[in-house]
Amino acid sequence: MDYLIAVDIGGTNIRSALFHANRDSYIKINKIKTRPSTEKTVTPLDQILLSIKNIWPKEGKVLGICAAAPGSILVDEGVVLLAPNIPGWKNISLAKELEKIFSTRVLVNNDARMAAYGEWKKGAGIGHNNLLYITISTGLGGGIIVNGKLLQGEKGLATEVGHITIVEGGDLCGCGKSGHLEAYSSGTAIENFVRSQIKKSPESGNFFRSPSPKASEIATAAREGSPLAKEAFYRAGYYLGVGIANYLHIFNPSCVIIGGGVSRSESLYFESFRKSLEAHVLNREYLKNLTISRAKLGDNSGLIGCVEYLRDSLH
Amino acid sequence: MDYLIAVDIGGTNIRSALFHANRDSYIKINKIKTRPSTEKTVTPLDQILLSIKNIWPKEGKVLGICAAAPGSILVDEGVVLLAPNIPGWKNISLAKELEKIFSTRVLVNNDARMAAYGEWKKGAGIGHNNLLYITISTGLGGGIIVNGKLLQGEKGLATEVGHITIVEGGDLCGCGKSGHLEAYSSGTAIENFVRSQIKKSPESGNFFRSPSPKASEIATAAREGSPLAKEAFYRAGYYLGVGIANYLHIFNPSCVIIGGGVSRSESLYFESFRKSLEAHVLNREYLKNLTISRAKLGDNSGLIGCVEYLRDSLH
Repeated sequence: MDYLIAVDIGGTNIRSALFHANRDSYIKINKIKTRPSTEKTVTPLDQILLSIKNIWPKEGKVLGICAAAPGSILVDEGVVLLAPNIPGWKNISLAKELEKIFSTRVLVNNDARMAAYGEWKKGAGIGHNNLLYITISTGLGGGIIVNGKLLQGEKGLATEVGHITIVEGGDLCGCGKSGHLEAYSSGTAIENFVRSQIKKSPESGNFFRSPSPKASEIATAAREGSPLAKEAFYRAGYYLGVGIANYLHIFNPSCVIIGGGVSRSESLYFESFRKSLEAHVLNREYLKNLTISRAKLGDNSGLIGCVEYLRDSLH
Repeated sequence: MDYLIAVDIGGTNIRSALFHANRDSYIKINKIKTRPSTEKTVTPLDQILLSIKNIWPKEGKVLGICAAAPGSILVDEGVVLLAPNIPGWKNISLAKELEKIFSTRVLVNNDARMAAYGEWKKGAGIGHNNLLYITISTGLGGGIIVNGKLLQGEKGLATEVGHITIVEGGDLCGCGKSGHLEAYSSGTAIENFVRSQIKKSPESGNFFRSPSPKASEIATAAREGSPLAKEAFYRAGYYLGVGIANYLHIFNPSCVIIGGGVSRSESLYFESFRKSLEAHVLNREYLKNLTISRAKLGDNSGLIGCVEYLRDSLH
């Protein structure tokens, strides 16, 4: 029996799944806590190895492993250049390390890009040749299909879709630069906006338990009628419209998929997003026959993307 | 003998060139003035027909025509959706019209995209698989190569590279929207900035013959020491850095080519462009081994691009 392994490395958890080489659903899955690289005893790499070992098949052959990590990946070399969510993770030759230990082909790629691949092959994007996938959670990432192929760029550093300047000199982004789409439309942006408004007028924070509520709490407050919480999502939707109009002008896709934790609060930002998109788009032709949909694969999009990408790369 | 015909339709001139099917340089070229579609007696289409007839070979076969027009083109249908520089040109079924008359295959595409194709195949971009071409003149357009293929999008409306918002709510763009890269870094943007500054403080316009100098005059003034003219180019370069950093994050190309009339004044904006690019890029990896160069094919890039694109499409 031949197998494939997908690994989704997150800031909180590492999940590894064992797949039959020719079947869609996984056989076994393992979840384990990510540890910061600053710990001396157990590193994220140790945790990845442990997670893979936990699902390694007793017999048969593992044809390859694909690991998805958050951050900048040099795809050809399988190097994690920088993973801001995993403290201390910089310049990790992940593919080489795993190949040495498991003696099988190892691919490493960006997690949002792999989720895009999953949604394209098995989710909301099936059949589209020009597709934009955006995932909105703490940060804002994504992946893009052009002419039926994954856009990766010369070294694999393409599709940093959250890190385009839409407001030069604007709000501070998680990456340290300013004015990026992520600084306006991510979960963190929603939290930052609410926090800054509560600072300005404390009574606007009456709906919240703390002066620094989390995005999920803000979503609840918005549904319960908090004007500030509603405004925070409205604003995020508005800037998402600015960013996606940019991407329509650059890529003219037939499909836009929005995933990630914040997309579960779609009802809170969709109206402002849609209005803003229509206001910013050069002409109606970009919206004609354009499918805009929610991601379908949920938390498994990255694992499914990894295994699909592995399949296509091994052939 | 087999031939190919390339047609470059501009707001001022229409140029048609006859090529041998298998040779690089053209045999004959014809230039004729563009007329606005609002004239009743002679339309732009009449002028295009006349220009093509002027170079049509006496014997042999024309395998195809490729026409490049400024504006939004539905590539598959060969329809010029909108050409803002040619008054009255809207929804023109150019491919069908030309096919009817010349009984040969006709392709229609965006002029800046065809120039990108030319630079990629025969100019400054030879050998690159991931390439960004930007042309800066009155407007700001371009073309992009991804994975060794031309990016066109689902209907051909992709790579409107000048029309991405970089300053939400900012300066008015030629397209009617605001805050676009074109509104900050094109020749028109340079002219608008100088005009608005002269209005504010008339003495800053001492270097100029009129209160509304053209970009070329501003370039001369900058070389002669006008602080306002220098600032205008500095500013355009700064925002060009913002825009190109965005494109590096999206495409991670190995080559950026800058062409168009304004690029002849490169020495006036290159320093601010380069500084801004370095300040805005997520990390140095995007600039490592990145070639940034001037376009090589000059005014013929569009014609050369058309004929190369035609060649690749007929095969």
